[in-house]
Amino acid sequence: MKTYIECIPCIINNGIFTAKRLKAKDEIIEKIIREILINFSTKDYNSSPPALVKDVYEIINKHLGVKDPYKDIKDFFNMELLKMENDFKKLVEENSDSFKKALKLAIAGNIIDFGIKSEISKESVLKHIDEVENTNLEIDDSKELYEILKNSKTLLYLGDNCGEIVFDKIFVEEIRKEFPNLKIKFAVRGKPVINDATMEDAHNISLHKILPIISNGDGSPGTVIENCSEEFKKAFYSSDVIISKGQGNFESLNEIDKKNIFFLFMAKCNVVAKGLNVPNMSFICKKNII
Amino acid sequence: MKTYIECIPCIINNGIFTAKRLKAKDEIIEKIIREILINFSTKDYNSSPPALVKDVYEIINKHLGVKDPYKDIKDFFNMELLKMENDFKKLVEENSDSFKKALKLAIAGNIIDFGIKSEISKESVLKHIDEVENTNLEIDDSKELYEILKNSKTLLYLGDNCGEIVFDKIFVEEIRKEFPNLKIKFAVRGKPVINDATMEDAHNISLHKILPIISNGDGSPGTVIENCSEEFKKAFYSSDVIISKGQGNFESLNEIDKKNIFFLFMAKCNVVAKGLNVPNMSFICKKNII
Repeated sequence: MKTYIECIPCIINNGIFTAKRLKAKDEIIEKIIREILINFSTKDYNSSPPALVKDVYEIINKHLGVKDPYKDIKDFFNMELLKMENDFKKLVEENSDSFKKALKLAIAGNIIDFGIKSEISKESVLKHIDEVENTNLEIDDSKELYEILKNSKTLLYLGDNCGEIVFDKIFVEEIRKEFPNLKIKFAVRGKPVINDATMEDAHNISLHKILPIISNGDGSPGTVIENCSEEFKKAFYSSDVIISKGQGNFESLNEIDKKNIFFLFMAKCNVVAKGLNVPNMSFICKKNII
Repeated sequence: MKTYIECIPCIINNGIFTAKRLKAKDEIIEKIIREILINFSTKDYNSSPPALVKDVYEIINKHLGVKDPYKDIKDFFNMELLKMENDFKKLVEENSDSFKKALKLAIAGNIIDFGIKSEISKESVLKHIDEVENTNLEIDDSKELYEILKNSKTLLYLGDNCGEIVFDKIFVEEIRKEFPNLKIKFAVRGKPVINDATMEDAHNISLHKILPIISNGDGSPGTVIENCSEEFKKAFYSSDVIISKGQGNFESLNEIDKKNIFFLFMAKCNVVAKGLNVPNMSFICKKNII
């Protein structure tokens, strides 16, 4: 999707929040903001919001020399959720529809997103996961995903946030149980941006021990295909099915010319929710339309 | 006060809201936003937020040819509150401390502010006024104001929003009852901006029939003294006391080198509330410190 006008102050706010979190001096924050304003004044708004966010994080890195502004929070959520991995697995295994349960958990895990909600506590994540049981998907193409996976040979799973990737790991294992012959790859961001998962994060939760991990080669909090590496593009276009996690991946891929992409995410802002005609904070499992 | 970094996305949001309210086409809104971004990238943030807001409204006017984007809402609130003028007067007169009651009502009327709260209904204003009875001023220099008025010859009253000026009218009449020898002037904005009161609005509620009205000659939603007319500056600097209504006037005058300014307003955003160490939406009657 393109960048809507309303996205611009929202992305600037995220930049301010991040620079302040890094305890940057006021005069440096001012320089950062001035550079963001100049950058956004000439940007092509047909680019998706993640393309603009990438610029914000590059500007912050340039001025503050911090390549991974949320490293502490990323590590915290990876480790905390990893400790509970077996409990979540049990929850899935005990359910009569374990595929759907794991899919819903993976969507629920998408709450861990600092791009929109700034700071979020472990307690609020767990409370949120508890609520999943009683929450329906507002858009639910999960049966179609299941059917298509049946007849597919390859799946590329696009990760999103740290912490959330523990749920993705559980869902991937569930998919593998159902479809043992499916070849699955997992993609992460090429560089740190907000709290998005990178190769290091995938290793930190031992995701690399169960399936191949590839980097998309880019530092956008989404999948801005023209910025991605050739290796990633090859995996992307050759996969029979794509599971795309998170709003950033949705924003950057929802108009792409590629079949069988399933977007699994929470619609976390008015612009996206309105575009999908669903209430804010809805759970979505949506097949792309081409 | 200077423009804080957090004010920038907030002011951009106000510009977007206003341009959308005027049903501007998407491509025109994009041009407006790009021009605001360029403007803000080079602006001196030692200017107060109202100085930046003025630029936003000038850019909107330039692209859309609409000089008074909230005219309908301004007229609506002027007329609706004028209809209830006598009821509010009764409320004041029946109170044992009618000066304080009128002062509190004048502060409560400051809720009618589209700069921050976008749209607001007549019902919510009336509900809010009802609550005034039980609400204390978080900062209360009203006794000092009363004492200083006793020994003063001239008062300049700086108006803020439409609708709200009906409460200002009642407060001015109450001040006149208490201090019949005080010479009072009322100042309005020189040009329309957001829902701020201009000369036309003062006339629409017959304020000019009870005291002289002067224009400040500027189109900022505050009192950016360097932009104001000579006539206004003369009145401003020669007055024994200034009653300054609204957050915009506070933002632009709180550091000025002039004694006996009393800021009467609701602290409607985190930046201002935090600066004053009060909760958001607090009622304030604060003497300036020089």
